[in-house]
Amino acid sequence: MSISSIKRVSDDSATTPEISKLIATYRQGYGLERRFYTDLKVFEHDIKRVYLNSWLYAGHVSQIPNPGDYITFEIANESVILIRGEQQRINALVNVCRHRGSRICSAASGQAKSLVCPYHGWTYDMDGHLRAARHAPDGFDKSLYSLKRINVGVFHGLMFINFAVAPQNFETMQQKLDECTKPFGFDRAKIAHRAVYPIKANWKLAVENYTECYHCSIAHREYSKLHTLEVPHEQVADLNTAMMARATEVGLVPKTVDHVTPGSTEVEYFFWRSPLYPGHVSGSPDGKAVAPPLGDIRGYDGGATDIQIGPVSFFLAYSDYAVIYRFIAKSIQETDCELIWLVNETAEEDTDYDLSRLTWLWDVTTESDKRIIEANQQGVNSDYYEPGPYSKMEQSTSRFIDWYLEKIG
Amino acid sequence: MSISSIKRVSDDSATTPEISKLIATYRQGYGLERRFYTDLKVFEHDIKRVYLNSWLYAGHVSQIPNPGDYITFEIANESVILIRGEQQRINALVNVCRHRGSRICSAASGQAKSLVCPYHGWTYDMDGHLRAARHAPDGFDKSLYSLKRINVGVFHGLMFINFAVAPQNFETMQQKLDECTKPFGFDRAKIAHRAVYPIKANWKLAVENYTECYHCSIAHREYSKLHTLEVPHEQVADLNTAMMARATEVGLVPKTVDHVTPGSTEVEYFFWRSPLYPGHVSGSPDGKAVAPPLGDIRGYDGGATDIQIGPVSFFLAYSDYAVIYRFIAKSIQETDCELIWLVNETAEEDTDYDLSRLTWLWDVTTESDKRIIEANQQGVNSDYYEPGPYSKMEQSTSRFIDWYLEKIG
Amino acid sequence: MSISSIKRVSDDSATTPEISKLIATYRQGYGLERRFYTDLKVFEHDIKRVYLNSWLYAGHVSQIPNPGDYITFEIANESVILIRGEQQRINALVNVCRHRGSRICSAASGQAKSLVCPYHGWTYDMDGHLRAARHAPDGFDKSLYSLKRINVGVFHGLMFINFAVAPQNFETMQQKLDECTKPFGFDRAKIAHRAVYPIKANWKLAVENYTECYHCSIAHREYSKLHTLEVPHEQVADLNTAMMARATEVGLVPKTVDHVTPGSTEVEYFFWRSPLYPGHVSGSPDGKAVAPPLGDIRGYDGGATDIQIGPVSFFLAYSDYAVIYRFIAKSIQETDCELIWLVNETAEEDTDYDLSRLTWLWDVTTESDKRIIEANQQGVNSDYYEPGPYSKMEQSTSRFIDWYLEKIG
Repeated sequence: MSISSIKRVSDDSATTPEISKLIATYRQGYGLERRFYTDLKVFEHDIKRVYLNSWLYAGHVSQIPNPGDYITFEIANESVILIRGEQQRINALVNVCRHRGSRICSAASGQAKSLVCPYHGWTYDMDGHLRAARHAPDGFDKSLYSLKRINVGVFHGLMFINFAVAPQNFETMQQKLDECTKPFGFDRAKIAHRAVYPIKANWKLAVENYTECYHCSIAHREYSKLHTLEVPHEQVADLNTAMMARATEVGLVPKTVDHVTPGSTEVEYFFWRSPLYPGHVSGSPDGKAVAPPLGDIRGYDGGATDIQIGPVSFFLAYSDYAVIYRFIAKSIQETDCELIWLVNETAEEDTDYDLSRLTWLWDVTTESDKRIIEANQQGVNSDYYEPGPYSKMEQSTSRFIDWYLEKIG
Repeated sequence: MSISSIKRVSDDSATTPEISKLIATYRQGYGLERRFYTDLKVFEHDIKRVYLNSWLYAGHVSQIPNPGDYITFEIANESVILIRGEQQRINALVNVCRHRGSRICSAASGQAKSLVCPYHGWTYDMDGHLRAARHAPDGFDKSLYSLKRINVGVFHGLMFINFAVAPQNFETMQQKLDECTKPFGFDRAKIAHRAVYPIKANWKLAVENYTECYHCSIAHREYSKLHTLEVPHEQVADLNTAMMARATEVGLVPKTVDHVTPGSTEVEYFFWRSPLYPGHVSGSPDGKAVAPPLGDIRGYDGGATDIQIGPVSFFLAYSDYAVIYRFIAKSIQETDCELIWLVNETAEEDTDYDLSRLTWLWDVTTESDKRIIEANQQGVNSDYYEPGPYSKMEQSTSRFIDWYLEKIG
Repeated sequence: MSISSIKRVSDDSATTPEISKLIATYRQGYGLERRFYTDLKVFEHDIKRVYLNSWLYAGHVSQIPNPGDYITFEIANESVILIRGEQQRINALVNVCRHRGSRICSAASGQAKSLVCPYHGWTYDMDGHLRAARHAPDGFDKSLYSLKRINVGVFHGLMFINFAVAPQNFETMQQKLDECTKPFGFDRAKIAHRAVYPIKANWKLAVENYTECYHCSIAHREYSKLHTLEVPHEQVADLNTAMMARATEVGLVPKTVDHVTPGSTEVEYFFWRSPLYPGHVSGSPDGKAVAPPLGDIRGYDGGATDIQIGPVSFFLAYSDYAVIYRFIAKSIQETDCELIWLVNETAEEDTDYDLSRLTWLWDVTTESDKRIIEANQQGVNSDYYEPGPYSKMEQSTSRFIDWYLEKIG
């Protein structure tokens, strides 16, 4: 992993008095005021303070195995080239030519031993250094015109980027989650499927939805047959204890690690395994396994692990497959929810797994979430909307709100 | 009819100095300046001062005959559930859950003995009282979380709503128009057809168009063959006198009632019957009747009644059918013109009326209006546009402008 | 040619302190800052200072040969009727009725002995005088309600308009370019084809692209096989000298005339002929002629003439055909690039020219330009974009920037 950074040109992310005043309307235990979801100035502030100042999941190492392999990642007005360079180094280069500012790579992925701007042919190497600029003015110093670079972090094959000049610490998370994440072998996984669900709602309503399961028993019939999160935790204490024992047996480390602390200098992270209902071992139509175990796991323990790294990247891992959830704000009331299904790298489609069984649960669940999040946004747009009190099953949403207000304040 | 109200959360509808200055540019007898149709701040002010502060036609009682029947009505960011509750009461409930703000009803109409939020299952009764909220925090008082309620008025089966905290008086209109409206039996009518014509223009240009017939002889060939409004009134005085006699004979009360007074504490209303050309008795391709008489009317008098209730709801009644016109502002230069055709509740399609003959005149006329209103907006957007003088046949448009300026001032 | 003008109603085009501050960020020899391409206030200022204050190519005389023939031209919120009136006069009339502001002509072209507003029938003659207004108020003076008129200039059959109250001088250009333009016989040309290429980018990025050929060798393979502009001028000095001699032989006047001077009171103009590579005489797939010579030209000299008149209208003339380029800003990041192919008026399609061979080069080249200009805008939208230095082959772009900054300052 390598971290280095170059300052953005414009970095006016100071909190305005207007936003401070809005933050002051917050009443602990209740939701946010309407303007947090409808005011363009808040949205622009969110982009700068949250998206361009946090660790974001950007891709999986299997997407760029060899030098010159690249993928691009887009957020707000930014585009980043994640390219494997010399000495296997993973570079996150800003996709903006230093001459007249053209995008250099327009494809979602590709292979290139050098990055050539399609406009005037300025040529950069795989590490972003300018190598050629025809007819440059006299006295031109190529070394001043490398592609700009942002921070990269890689954790068990999961690549993260961070636009911040002084990004939050990524290493402590790596140490704390290393042992319990290792058995899943994410670095030896492969992408089985990818889908994007565009949601007509502010990104915070999407994340709020993801952080609580109070809605599960009402909105997610399929999920609620399998997962125990749809009831208060204390009601499933015994199931949990039994699953923990089985998890340990198959080689997992089912500890709980929690660090989503307002104002922290570390990346936000969270790790936790919870039980499925008896007789079920995976998120599938019949609760049966849909793929060979991931990584070093030696069986099916009937649990599901929730991991969070950074504010908008979530990972859900059964014994046999994992789903990456990524929320990308596109505009004030448009958010892309992207899902990536991972299986063991040796698993073969049709032989080892059936794609429709693998993707069924989280496709149907995300389609439902899309509908309820959009209905939530419509209601929140009303002049009559007033934040109501959180239930006992929405404490993690309340915690997200606290974290968010600290982040933008 | 029942009127009660709960204050909106945000109600900042004060007239800004900028808008006052714009109002001061008005020259009596001329149109409005460009910015009234192009400035987003004026539009937002219009929504608050006109749409959210006026009586709006929201539906017909036949749409919700039984307890639990509901329709939804949308304007600006607001959605209202018109639901028939206990004791046949008609409730206008704000379609926003008191928990996290989700829309509760997403369909245009339905039937429900209780209103259950699709997000977390909070449950309200047909009168909007919160009945259930799972896992609510300690000390939670359900009685504080009823659905919010806005004003409802019902006049001969026509349902109106009003978002205002202190709505204009609705009763005086009911008394003044009762006798002359009664024979049409609108409360015993049924909806034969409904169509929405989206118009790319500011709502005021649409209403201005509706309020004058100076354009009829130029733009509405079909209408002008039947209706005498396309010439100055004095030219058809004799036709009018003859029609008045026939109207009385068939049981109508063809009086003129007029109350569209700037600054009034009463709802705006207007009632007037005007003659068709000899040999015609309805708005149809050949001027012949297209349906059995409405309500208690005993024949075809060859007249057409114009009724206005509130600023954007108009009703046109021949002896055999009526058309409801509703103008709903969608954005600064997008307005939905909705038409609803009413016939007697006992009339059967194909047997008693042919839908294509019934809807022909006002479909073709509205399509023409859509075109000319959109061309009007395009021209008004020009920097070269200057309001011109109203002709002698546009006095009612001039009156609408006066009313409007008082309403927003 | 006739020039006269009537003031626009709103003409608030003063440079704000904000824009002055932005202009002050300019560093000679480098590109413009991001906000010039992303700030709505800059765009609105551009429209007023550049588009509504410059000579714009609006059409070819062959489109309106007879009295009553008209075409319409649209820019920003404005629409102009270019109509041939009495005594063959070409009028540029604002397409806004003086009554309620409706557009009068909605078609792109037509024929009308009088202009009748489709709304209320106000009727104007071909020179814009109001002739009829039914039921006008008492004391109405028709002479005060002529259609508004903007400036028109015609140069060898090319019609230009200018919205300015005090437009830049058009005549000096006519004198200076008359001799060298005459042989092309543009006034005796006909339109062979017309195409619009919508580009998702700010208009300045499109014009910047047009003004330099540094990108040609990278982005325009087809063009670069034919045209010598893809290398520095000094490398083709001999080819140029040879072409000049041949040009003179066939009746052309290959002089260079250059007047794109910041702050000038004259229209911007430019005239220059450059050589094709040996063996090529036209912009065609094989470099062979695709049509009979234009105007009075007596052969194929193997040159191409670039003409600019006003800031956004360009003309490229081979010996056998010409292409008109017009850049019309539609929104801050949407620009229409319109191409019009001219051939001699006597040339017949299929007999004298093959349309696909005629249009091939500039269609394929413009499609490429569309792609690179859009990629340029995407990159410029980034917070990381910094203007880079212009190469030695982009001096004319640098000059355009200087001109632009003076125009808006």
